[in-house]
Amino acid sequence: MDMYYAVVFTSQRAVDDGESYAKMATVMNDLACQQPGFLRVESVRNTEGKGITVSYWESLEAIQAWKDNMKHKMAQQLGQEKWYTQYQVEICQVIKDYSFEK
Amino acid sequence: MDMYYAVVFTSQRAVDDGESYAKMATVMNDLACQQPGFLRVESVRNTEGKGITVSYWESLEAIQAWKDNMKHKMAQQLGQEKWYTQYQVEICQVIKDYSFEK
Repeated sequence: MDMYYAVVFTSQRAVDDGESYAKMATVMNDLACQQPGFLRVESVRNTEGKGITVSYWESLEAIQAWKDNMKHKMAQQLGQEKWYTQYQVEICQVIKDYSFEK
Repeated sequence: MDMYYAVVFTSQRAVDDGESYAKMATVMNDLACQQPGFLRVESVRNTEGKGITVSYWESLEAIQAWKDNMKHKMAQQLGQEKWYTQYQVEICQVIKDYSFEK
């Protein structure tokens, strides 16, 4: 297995602000997918506003470059000011993986 | 930061079978929490049946012991036969973490 990395982002949304979060989330998702070293992303949010997004990357440098992306930085600031009451991030190295499909 | 580990479990539920999955999920969650080396767990499932659960552990040995737990093994088998159409697992070493709270 080639070495790769995962970023786990667990968050709690603040009260729903209609369209603006959904739009920004789509823009950020599209932008992340275009970053060098991006592999894939999985994302789930439930009806209580709790969400987990896991993005997968080829290298720690790719993760750092995405964190430092200017448009992403603006979204991060809006996230703290407006969209999230709480979040946590873990940067991880994937040691082993397996999957099941019917 | 003390070294610790994360298990990312991304899954797609099959059609809803009423109570039996919810009961087993609660039992497995409680059992995991009692395992040696268990730190904490975050879990989200959306209305389309897609879920991400991230459990955190002190060591790879603790993760292996939980994977090999007999009751958990029975649940894993039921998961493949009945509850999930697809899942993937990544065993990760957490390199860095940070959080935000309002």
